[in-house]
Amino acid sequence: MKLTMVTSNTNKAREVAEFFGGFLDVTFVPLEIPELRSDDVEVISRQKAQYAYDHLLTPLIVDDTSFSIDALNGFPGPYAAYVLYSIGNTGILKLMKDVENRNAHFTTVIAFADEKSIRNFSGTIHGRIITVPRGSGGFGYDPIFDVDGRTLAELPLEEKSRLSHRALALTAFREWFVQEYRP
Amino acid sequence: MKLTMVTSNTNKAREVAEFFGGFLDVTFVPLEIPELRSDDVEVISRQKAQYAYDHLLTPLIVDDTSFSIDALNGFPGPYAAYVLYSIGNTGILKLMKDVENRNAHFTTVIAFADEKSIRNFSGTIHGRIITVPRGSGGFGYDPIFDVDGRTLAELPLEEKSRLSHRALALTAFREWFVQEYRP
Repeated sequence: MKLTMVTSNTNKAREVAEFFGGFLDVTFVPLEIPELRSDDVEVISRQKAQYAYDHLLTPLIVDDTSFSIDALNGFPGPYAAYVLYSIGNTGILKLMKDVENRNAHFTTVIAFADEKSIRNFSGTIHGRIITVPRGSGGFGYDPIFDVDGRTLAELPLEEKSRLSHRALALTAFREWFVQEYRP
Repeated sequence: MKLTMVTSNTNKAREVAEFFGGFLDVTFVPLEIPELRSDDVEVISRQKAQYAYDHLLTPLIVDDTSFSIDALNGFPGPYAAYVLYSIGNTGILKLMKDVENRNAHFTTVIAFADEKSIRNFSGTIHGRIITVPRGSGGFGYDPIFDVDGRTLAELPLEEKSRLSHRALALTAFREWFVQEYRP
Protein backbone atom coordinates (compact mmCIF):
# COMPACT_ATOMS: atom_id res chain seq x y z
CA MET A 1 0.00 0.00 0.00
CA LYS A 2 1.27 3.45 -0.84
CA LEU A 3 0.88 6.75 0.97
CA THR A 4 2.38 10.21 0.67
CA MET A 5 3.37 12.33 3.67
CA VAL A 6 3.85 16.03 3.10
CA THR A 7 6.56 17.44 5.34
CA SER A 8 9.78 19.37 5.03
CA ASN A 9 10.85 18.27 8.52
CA THR A 10 13.26 15.37 8.08
CA ASN A 11 12.99 14.45 11.78
CA LYS A 12 9.24 13.93 11.43
CA ALA A 13 9.80 11.94 8.23
CA ARG A 14 12.27 9.69 10.03
CA GLU A 15 9.81 9.00 12.86
CA VAL A 16 6.96 8.27 10.48
CA ALA A 17 9.09 5.95 8.31
CA GLU A 18 10.17 4.10 11.46
CA PHE A 19 6.56 3.85 12.65
CA PHE A 20 5.22 2.27 9.47
CA GLY A 21 8.23 0.02 8.90
CA GLY A 22 7.46 -2.45 6.13
CA PHE A 23 3.70 -2.01 6.57
CA LEU A 24 3.25 1.01 4.35
CA ASP A 25 5.38 2.43 1.59
CA VAL A 26 5.50 6.13 2.53
CA THR A 27 6.81 8.75 0.12
CA PHE A 28 7.85 12.08 1.64
CA VAL A 29 7.15 15.26 -0.30
CA PRO A 30 8.47 18.62 0.98
CA LEU A 31 5.62 20.68 -0.51
CA GLU A 32 5.56 24.24 0.85
CA ILE A 33 2.11 24.80 2.40
CA PRO A 34 0.76 28.20 3.45
CA GLU A 35 -0.41 27.69 7.03
CA LEU A 36 -3.13 29.37 9.03
CA ARG A 37 -2.26 31.49 12.07
CA SER A 38 -4.70 29.70 14.33
CA ASP A 39 -4.62 28.45 17.92
CA ASP A 40 -6.25 25.21 16.82
CA VAL A 41 -4.04 22.48 15.34
CA GLU A 42 -7.13 20.56 14.21
CA VAL A 43 -8.08 23.48 11.99
CA ILE A 44 -4.50 24.02 10.78
CA SER A 45 -3.93 20.40 9.82
CA ARG A 46 -7.24 20.09 7.97
CA GLN A 47 -6.43 23.16 5.91
CA LYS A 48 -2.89 21.87 5.24
CA ALA A 49 -4.22 18.50 4.08
CA GLN A 50 -6.79 20.15 1.83
CA TYR A 51 -4.15 22.40 0.26
CA ALA A 52 -1.73 19.51 -0.24
CA TYR A 53 -4.38 17.30 -1.80
CA ASP A 54 -5.45 20.08 -4.19
CA HIS A 55 -1.84 20.28 -5.38
CA LEU A 56 -0.74 16.64 -5.36
CA LEU A 57 -4.02 14.80 -6.09
CA THR A 58 -2.89 11.68 -4.25
CA PRO A 59 -3.96 10.24 -0.86
CA LEU A 60 -1.72 11.84 1.75
CA ILE A 61 -1.14 12.73 5.36
CA VAL A 62 0.17 15.90 6.99
CA ASP A 63 1.28 16.40 10.58
CA ASP A 64 0.78 19.38 12.84
CA THR A 65 2.09 19.38 16.36
CA SER A 66 1.53 21.74 19.25
CA PHE A 67 3.45 21.92 22.51
CA SER A 68 1.58 23.42 25.44
CA ILE A 69 2.89 24.39 28.86
CA ASP A 70 0.15 24.75 31.48
CA ALA A 71 1.85 27.49 33.53
CA LEU A 72 2.35 29.58 30.36
CA ASN A 73 -1.31 29.44 29.28
CA GLY A 74 -0.53 26.87 26.63
CA PHE A 75 2.50 28.67 25.15
CA PRO A 76 4.10 27.95 22.67
CA GLY A 77 1.05 26.00 21.44
CA PRO A 78 0.76 25.82 17.64
CA TYR A 79 3.77 28.13 17.24
CA ALA A 80 6.16 25.49 18.59
CA ALA A 81 8.40 25.62 15.49
CA TYR A 82 8.75 29.40 15.45
CA VAL A 83 9.37 29.61 19.19
CA LEU A 84 12.00 26.89 18.99
CA TYR A 85 13.77 28.76 16.22
CA SER A 86 13.64 32.12 18.01
CA ILE A 87 14.05 31.61 21.78
CA GLY A 88 14.73 27.85 21.83
CA ASN A 89 14.77 25.54 24.82
CA THR A 90 16.97 28.06 26.62
CA GLY A 91 14.13 30.58 26.39
CA ILE A 92 11.55 28.06 27.59
CA LEU A 93 13.69 27.12 30.60
CA LYS A 94 14.17 30.80 31.42
CA LEU A 95 10.40 31.35 31.29
CA MET A 96 9.93 28.32 33.56
CA LYS A 97 12.56 29.39 36.10
CA ASP A 98 11.07 29.17 39.62
CA VAL A 99 7.71 28.04 38.21
CA GLU A 100 6.22 25.25 40.31
CA ASN A 101 3.66 23.76 37.89
CA ARG A 102 5.84 22.00 35.26
CA ASN A 103 3.01 20.19 33.44
CA ALA A 104 3.04 20.24 29.64
CA HIS A 105 1.75 18.20 26.73
CA PHE A 106 2.42 17.51 23.10
CA THR A 107 -0.46 16.99 20.69
CA THR A 108 0.02 15.78 17.14
CA VAL A 109 -2.80 15.85 14.64
CA ILE A 110 -2.39 13.68 11.56
CA ALA A 111 -4.76 14.76 8.79
CA PHE A 112 -5.48 12.35 5.96
CA ALA A 113 -6.91 13.61 2.67
CA ASP A 114 -8.06 11.87 -0.46
CA GLU A 115 -10.50 12.85 -3.19
CA LYS A 116 -13.45 12.12 -0.93
CA SER A 117 -12.71 13.63 2.46
CA ILE A 118 -10.33 14.86 5.15
CA ARG A 119 -9.99 13.11 8.50
CA ASN A 120 -8.07 14.08 11.64
CA PHE A 121 -6.41 11.66 14.07
CA SER A 122 -4.83 13.04 17.20
CA GLY A 123 -2.45 11.85 19.88
CA THR A 124 -1.47 13.56 23.13
CA ILE A 125 1.29 12.81 25.59
CA HIS A 126 1.58 14.43 29.00
CA GLY A 127 4.84 15.15 30.78
CA ARG A 128 6.83 17.71 32.71
CA ILE A 129 9.31 20.42 31.83
CA ILE A 130 12.62 19.63 33.50
CA THR A 131 15.21 22.21 34.51
CA VAL A 132 18.31 20.85 32.75
CA PRO A 133 18.02 19.31 29.22
CA ARG A 134 18.79 15.58 28.95
CA GLY A 135 19.34 13.25 25.98
CA SER A 136 20.60 13.62 22.44
CA GLY A 137 17.86 11.85 20.44
CA GLY A 138 14.63 13.27 19.09
CA PHE A 139 14.41 16.91 18.13
CA GLY A 140 12.83 20.20 19.17
CA TYR A 141 11.59 20.25 22.76
CA ASP A 142 12.33 16.57 23.39
CA PRO A 143 15.37 17.19 25.68
CA ILE A 144 13.34 19.27 28.18
CA PHE A 145 10.16 17.13 28.17
CA ASP A 146 10.13 14.30 30.70
CA VAL A 147 7.68 11.40 30.64
CA ASP A 148 7.91 8.92 33.52
CA GLY A 149 11.52 9.74 34.31
CA ARG A 150 12.99 9.93 30.81
CA THR A 151 12.98 12.79 28.33
CA LEU A 152 11.77 12.10 24.79
CA ALA A 153 15.37 12.79 23.72
CA GLU A 154 16.51 9.88 25.91
CA LEU A 155 14.32 7.37 24.06
CA PRO A 156 15.84 5.42 21.16
CA LEU A 157 14.15 6.29 17.83
CA GLU A 158 12.46 2.89 17.78
CA GLU A 159 10.91 3.52 21.20
CA LYS A 160 9.92 7.12 20.53
CA SER A 161 8.27 5.96 17.32
CA ARG A 162 6.02 3.69 19.40
CA LEU A 163 5.28 5.91 22.39
CA SER A 164 5.20 9.55 21.35
CA HIS A 165 2.25 11.88 20.65
CA ARG A 166 3.04 11.40 16.95
CA ALA A 167 2.99 7.60 17.35
CA LEU A 168 -0.40 7.76 19.09
CA ALA A 169 -1.86 9.85 16.28
CA LEU A 170 -0.31 7.54 13.67
CA THR A 171 -1.71 4.50 15.48
CA ALA A 172 -5.22 5.94 15.36
CA PHE A 173 -4.75 6.75 11.70
CA ARG A 174 -3.37 3.27 10.91
CA GLU A 175 -6.29 1.50 12.59
CA TRP A 176 -8.79 3.43 10.57
CA PHE A 177 -6.74 3.11 7.39
CA VAL A 178 -6.44 -0.68 7.69
CA GLN A 179 -9.96 -1.42 8.84
CA GLU A 180 -12.15 1.16 7.22
CA TYR A 181 -10.42 2.91 4.39
CA ARG A 182 -11.68 1.95 0.96
CA PRO A 183 -10.12 4.05 -1.79
CA MET B 1 -14.44 60.17 1.78
CA LYS B 2 -15.31 56.77 3.21
CA LEU B 3 -13.13 53.84 4.13
CA THR B 4 -13.62 50.56 5.97
CA MET B 5 -11.08 49.14 8.40
CA VAL B 6 -11.35 45.48 9.27
CA THR B 7 -10.29 44.80 12.85
CA SER B 8 -11.67 43.23 15.97
CA ASN B 9 -9.09 45.05 18.09
CA THR B 10 -10.80 48.08 19.61
CA ASN B 11 -7.46 49.59 20.63
CA LYS B 12 -6.28 49.63 17.01
CA ALA B 13 -9.64 51.06 15.91
CA ARG B 14 -9.29 53.86 18.46
CA GLU B 15 -5.80 54.77 17.20
CA VAL B 16 -6.87 54.73 13.57
CA ALA B 17 -9.97 56.85 14.25
CA GLU B 18 -7.79 59.35 16.13
CA PHE B 19 -5.26 59.39 13.28
CA PHE B 20 -7.76 60.20 10.56
CA GLY B 21 -9.77 62.64 12.66
CA GLY B 22 -12.23 64.51 10.45
CA PHE B 23 -10.24 63.71 7.30
CA LEU B 24 -11.72 60.31 6.56
CA ASP B 25 -14.92 58.68 7.69
CA VAL B 26 -13.70 55.24 8.81
CA THR B 27 -16.11 52.40 9.52
CA PHE B 28 -14.77 49.53 11.62
CA VAL B 29 -15.87 46.00 10.80
CA PRO B 30 -14.88 43.08 13.09
CA LEU B 31 -14.81 40.47 10.29
CA GLU B 32 -13.13 37.23 11.38
CA ILE B 33 -10.25 36.58 8.95
CA PRO B 34 -8.35 33.27 8.73
CA GLU B 35 -4.69 34.30 8.99
CA LEU B 36 -1.59 32.68 7.60
CA ARG B 37 1.06 31.27 9.94
CA SER B 38 3.92 33.13 8.29
CA ASP B 39 6.96 34.99 9.54
CA ASP B 40 6.26 37.78 7.07
CA VAL B 41 3.70 40.44 8.02
CA GLU B 42 3.72 41.77 4.44
CA VAL B 43 2.45 38.40 3.24
CA ILE B 44 -0.05 38.07 6.11
CA SER B 45 -1.57 41.52 5.60
CA ARG B 46 -1.93 41.10 1.85
CA GLN B 47 -3.76 37.84 2.31
CA LYS B 48 -5.99 39.37 5.02
CA ALA B 49 -6.87 42.31 2.78
CA GLN B 50 -7.68 40.00 -0.13
CA TYR B 51 -9.90 37.82 2.04
CA ALA B 52 -11.67 40.84 3.54
CA TYR B 53 -12.26 42.43 0.14
CA ASP B 54 -13.66 39.17 -1.27
CA HIS B 55 -16.20 39.17 1.56
CA LEU B 56 -17.06 42.85 1.93
CA LEU B 57 -16.58 44.16 -1.64
CA THR B 58 -15.75 47.66 -0.45
CA PRO B 59 -12.41 49.55 -0.36
CA LEU B 60 -10.80 48.69 2.96
CA ILE B 61 -7.65 48.51 5.05
CA VAL B 62 -6.35 45.87 7.42
CA ASP B 63 -3.50 46.15 9.92
CA ASP B 64 -0.91 43.59 10.84
CA THR B 65 1.75 44.36 13.42
CA SER B 66 4.87 42.50 14.44
CA PHE B 67 7.04 43.13 17.47
CA SER B 68 10.66 41.98 17.17
CA ILE B 69 13.31 41.78 19.86
CA ASP B 70 16.84 41.57 18.47
CA ALA B 71 18.32 39.45 21.26
CA LEU B 72 15.48 36.91 20.86
CA ASN B 73 15.99 36.43 17.10
CA GLY B 74 12.98 38.58 16.34
CA PHE B 75 10.61 36.91 18.83
CA PRO B 76 7.63 37.34 19.18
CA GLY B 77 7.53 38.68 15.60
CA PRO B 78 4.19 38.13 13.84
CA TYR B 79 2.87 36.16 16.83
CA ALA B 80 2.80 39.26 19.02
CA ALA B 81 -0.88 38.86 19.87
CA TYR B 82 -0.64 35.18 20.84
CA VAL B 83 2.51 35.71 22.89
CA LEU B 84 0.94 38.63 24.72
CA TYR B 85 -2.09 36.52 25.57
CA SER B 86 -0.02 33.54 26.73
CA ILE B 87 3.16 34.75 28.48
CA GLY B 88 2.49 38.50 28.44
CA ASN B 89 4.91 41.31 29.25
CA THR B 90 5.92 39.41 32.38
CA GLY B 91 7.17 36.59 30.16
CA ILE B 92 9.02 38.97 27.84
CA LEU B 93 10.75 40.66 30.79
CA LYS B 94 11.73 37.26 32.19
CA LEU B 95 13.23 36.26 28.82
CA MET B 96 15.11 39.57 28.74
CA LYS B 97 16.46 39.27 32.28
CA ASP B 98 20.24 39.93 32.28
CA VAL B 99 20.20 40.43 28.49
CA GLU B 100 22.37 43.37 27.47
CA ASN B 101 21.08 44.09 23.97
CA ARG B 102 17.60 45.59 24.59
CA ASN B 103 16.91 46.72 21.02
CA ALA B 104 13.48 45.99 19.57
CA HIS B 105 11.14 47.32 16.92
CA PHE B 106 7.50 47.43 15.99
CA THR B 107 6.44 47.17 12.37
CA THR B 108 2.90 47.78 11.20
CA VAL B 109 1.79 46.94 7.70
CA ILE B 110 -1.41 48.56 6.49
CA ALA B 111 -2.82 46.74 3.47
CA PHE B 112 -5.37 48.50 1.28
CA ALA B 113 -7.61 46.54 -1.07
CA ASP B 114 -10.17 47.57 -3.62
CA GLU B 115 -11.53 45.86 -6.71
CA LYS B 116 -8.34 46.60 -8.64
CA SER B 117 -5.41 45.81 -6.38
CA ILE B 118 -3.82 45.36 -2.98
CA ARG B 119 -1.12 47.69 -1.66
CA ASN B 120 1.03 47.53 1.45
CA PHE B 121 2.27 50.52 3.47
CA SER B 122 4.60 49.93 6.36
CA GLY B 123 5.93 51.84 9.34
CA THR B 124 8.65 50.85 11.79
CA ILE B 125 9.66 52.34 15.12
CA HIS B 126 12.82 51.38 16.99
CA GLY B 127 13.16 51.37 20.74
CA ARG B 128 14.38 49.44 23.76
CA ILE B 129 12.87 46.91 26.15
CA ILE B 130 12.94 48.38 29.64
CA THR B 131 13.10 46.32 32.83
CA VAL B 132 10.07 47.69 34.70
CA PRO B 133 6.83 48.56 32.81
CA ARG B 134 5.83 52.24 32.74
CA GLY B 135 2.67 54.05 31.66
CA SER B 136 -1.01 53.21 31.48
CA GLY B 137 -1.90 54.28 27.94
CA GLY B 138 -1.64 52.28 24.73
CA PHE B 139 -1.98 48.51 24.80
CA GLY B 140 -0.01 45.32 24.35
CA TYR B 141 3.73 45.74 24.64
CA ASP B 142 3.57 49.54 24.91
CA PRO B 143 4.46 49.68 28.66
CA ILE B 144 7.79 47.87 28.15
CA PHE B 145 8.85 49.58 24.91
CA ASP B 146 10.83 52.80 25.36
CA VAL B 147 11.44 55.34 22.61
CA ASP B 148 13.67 58.29 23.49
CA GLY B 149 13.00 58.06 27.20
CA ARG B 150 9.26 57.42 27.20
CA THR B 151 7.35 54.18 26.75
CA LEU B 152 4.56 54.10 24.16
CA ALA B 153 2.20 53.65 27.12
CA GLU B 154 3.36 57.02 28.49
CA LEU B 155 2.30 58.89 25.34
CA PRO B 156 -1.16 60.46 25.24
CA LEU B 157 -3.38 58.81 22.57
CA GLU B 158 -3.12 61.93 20.43
CA GLU B 159 0.68 61.74 20.46
CA LYS B 160 0.90 57.99 19.93
CA SER B 161 -1.47 58.38 16.99
CA ARG B 162 1.09 60.70 15.38
CA LEU B 163 4.37 58.97 16.26
CA SER B 164 3.85 55.21 16.41
CA HIS B 165 4.69 52.48 13.89
CA ARG B 166 0.96 52.38 13.09
CA ALA B 167 0.92 56.16 12.55
CA LEU B 168 3.90 55.91 10.17
CA ALA B 169 2.19 53.20 8.13
CA LEU B 170 -1.08 55.17 8.10
CA THR B 171 0.79 58.31 7.01
CA ALA B 172 2.29 56.47 4.05
CA PHE B 173 -1.12 55.10 3.19
CA ARG B 174 -2.81 58.51 3.51
CA GLU B 175 -0.29 60.20 1.23
CA TRP B 176 -0.87 57.66 -1.48
CA PHE B 177 -4.63 57.64 -0.93
CA VAL B 178 -4.91 61.43 -1.19
CA GLN B 179 -2.50 61.96 -4.05
CA GLU B 180 -2.79 58.89 -6.23
CA TYR B 181 -5.86 56.87 -5.45
CA ARG B 182 -8.56 57.08 -8.08
CA PRO B 183 -11.45 54.72 -7.38
